[in-house]
Amino acid sequence: MRHQLNTEIGTLLDKVRASTPLIHHITNYVTVNDCANMTLAIGASPVMADSIHEVRDMVSIASALVINTGTLNEATVASMLAAAKQANAKGIPLVLDPVGAGATPYRTETVRQLLQQARFSVIRGNLSEIRVLAGLDEQTRGVDATAVFDTNSQQQEMQAFIENTARKLNTTLAVTGAIDIVSDGRRICFIKNGRPEMARVTGTGCMCSSLVGAFLPMAESPFIAAVAAVACMGTAGEIAYGNLLPQEGNASYRNRIIDAVYNLTAAQIAEQARLK
Amino acid sequence: MRHQLNTEIGTLLDKVRASTPLIHHITNYVTVNDCANMTLAIGASPVMADSIHEVRDMVSIASALVINTGTLNEATVASMLAAAKQANAKGIPLVLDPVGAGATPYRTETVRQLLQQARFSVIRGNLSEIRVLAGLDEQTRGVDATAVFDTNSQQQEMQAFIENTARKLNTTLAVTGAIDIVSDGRRICFIKNGRPEMARVTGTGCMCSSLVGAFLPMAESPFIAAVAAVACMGTAGEIAYGNLLPQEGNASYRNRIIDAVYNLTAAQIAEQARLK
Amino acid sequence: MRHQLNTEIGTLLDKVRASTPLIHHITNYVTVNDCANMTLAIGASPVMADSIHEVRDMVSIASALVINTGTLNEATVASMLAAAKQANAKGIPLVLDPVGAGATPYRTETVRQLLQQARFSVIRGNLSEIRVLAGLDEQTRGVDATAVFDTNSQQQEMQAFIENTARKLNTTLAVTGAIDIVSDGRRICFIKNGRPEMARVTGTGCMCSSLVGAFLPMAESPFIAAVAAVACMGTAGEIAYGNLLPQEGNASYRNRIIDAVYNLTAAQIAEQARLK
Repeated sequence: MRHQLNTEIGTLLDKVRASTPLIHHITNYVTVNDCANMTLAIGASPVMADSIHEVRDMVSIASALVINTGTLNEATVASMLAAAKQANAKGIPLVLDPVGAGATPYRTETVRQLLQQARFSVIRGNLSEIRVLAGLDEQTRGVDATAVFDTNSQQQEMQAFIENTARKLNTTLAVTGAIDIVSDGRRICFIKNGRPEMARVTGTGCMCSSLVGAFLPMAESPFIAAVAAVACMGTAGEIAYGNLLPQEGNASYRNRIIDAVYNLTAAQIAEQARLK
Repeated sequence: MRHQLNTEIGTLLDKVRASTPLIHHITNYVTVNDCANMTLAIGASPVMADSIHEVRDMVSIASALVINTGTLNEATVASMLAAAKQANAKGIPLVLDPVGAGATPYRTETVRQLLQQARFSVIRGNLSEIRVLAGLDEQTRGVDATAVFDTNSQQQEMQAFIENTARKLNTTLAVTGAIDIVSDGRRICFIKNGRPEMARVTGTGCMCSSLVGAFLPMAESPFIAAVAAVACMGTAGEIAYGNLLPQEGNASYRNRIIDAVYNLTAAQIAEQARLK
Repeated sequence: MRHQLNTEIGTLLDKVRASTPLIHHITNYVTVNDCANMTLAIGASPVMADSIHEVRDMVSIASALVINTGTLNEATVASMLAAAKQANAKGIPLVLDPVGAGATPYRTETVRQLLQQARFSVIRGNLSEIRVLAGLDEQTRGVDATAVFDTNSQQQEMQAFIENTARKLNTTLAVTGAIDIVSDGRRICFIKNGRPEMARVTGTGCMCSSLVGAFLPMAESPFIAAVAAVACMGTAGEIAYGNLLPQEGNASYRNRIIDAVYNLTAAQIAEQARLK
């Protein structure tokens, strides 16, 4: 247990609830409703807008912007690029959820453009997506080949890979999956919360990225914001799992996860987050 | 209590259930699923369609059209304008939910165009959105400045403002928030139902607009339809709140609100609506 | 009871769970989240992508493609056509859910183009949609007029109509509604599961089409896949209805249907499916 960090994320949760920051999302149409309710559950306020005619204006009145590449098209990619640049210009913290990077050349290319044209406070993805981002960087800057490792056994290699990639991309990485790791290239934190059943609910990753967005405006650093978001999501996943009734499955689990974030207290998250 | 109005909205609910009107929505992709299930819950039938190639045809077979500006783009704005004009031409009742009017110039301008090119039976929004609409009208027609008032104390000023705005916009306004007010510029009704926790569920406003759409085809006047919708939403919010279990939060609350509308009876709404 | 078919669909469910096929959807934004969670509930993996810049790549790595015309626009229609042709070229099974065919000329024309340019393994729709498809075929090929019959009394005519239409369209039809019928033009199966209340939940048809997509990659034939999907949906509808609490309605029913599929076992589906 890292007592100071645990206390910090509890305090941060209270700050979000006291200030209700507006979190602008340019996101996919699959999990967008869950992201909106999750943003409300943590105590922030969501707004979704993706037209090129308004994203610059919308991000300018927001406290953070979450860009999620779950369902892309020409119009929304242009809006993502414009909004990301505007966020950077205005000093508004920016989150990237590179959903499906590597699955198609279009997604990979879109993520490459986003990384080239904007600086992200936090990038949250699964290990496979983060590997693609690391590879992009290598292609672009000619650095050494992407580390390959087994997620279960080679924790040291994974740790080094994530720290290096965070430094290369000049961001804070939140890599979520079997193990959750946050690193800004200098500090690293393993978050041992969550349940494997969360993978059977669509959008748990997207919702976690919304939480990162909600924490960023109040956080001392993107690192703290990302640790808080991942810990909240994992803790809520555990609480919600405990609340499931025998005949319930992934649809009820989705609702119970959002409900658990809604009811999460600063004391609870400080107590139950397993940070290492 | 306004006994006659209470009885009328109960009767109207039964009429909707008996006739299952088709309610065409051009709406946002955030809360669209909740709007569809809410439309089914009240006993109507939803259809969502936003392509310029079909909105005129779709609205022509519908009993009402709900236009919601929650997520706009060039294509859907063109469809909104075309469908709204077709609805007017065919005498099909039309609802506007001007989500985010005032938040960006694009939204404000879109709402201005909609108001210029079509006549809406009911406009449902929060006070801030309705103020923007009133301002538009002033800019456009050079009338006196928007009234400014404190929503809690200055109820008389608010009442006058809403009645005046309804007359100026030649519509029925349903202003929802801490207090819910419906006025067609001639009559006014305060609806004292609902729970503050409804603001922590995304889409309660959008769902209320869907209810307005469902009530309009069977209602004697847009005023009755709007009162019925706001009263149903508020009453359902109270019932659903009472059904929440200790560990439940905003995601379960959303489901329980829709469930409460599904199970709402004419007697219940006539009895529990607090109209003044 | 058709004991062999019952056993086969139980076995098929286990195969889906063991192999987690990737199911690409080009679908509407109303029920997309439910389709994603339903795909996860049955044990498959969903991916939604509709940009012309990536649908060919995405379908090429998928095990099946589900095309749903619930919310169409120029961009997604082009993507549907491109992805469908690519699926055919790669031998990837293809499902069509012709939502709203007949409601507007645009929908009907889009479905006509899809049928002309691609061959679908399974088409799942309600009787009204399938009639429109049969009519298209007649217009195109100059065959005799669409059979007209009463769904309740004239079961023989309906059976003949569905078998003939399946043969003419060279596909397997899954017609769902008051009675569920699957036919590949040679075999026919009546599935007597489900509850009328399922019609008050938006997207039960769309979710059923997602299940067809999930079963197709592992199934011996499209006929078995369609029977399995319709039987799972109907059985889950019955189980979920039994799990509803007194104050629950269509929103909770939606969740409980997905939950029931999540918890459905091979033995349960083999036992409870009423196939004839």
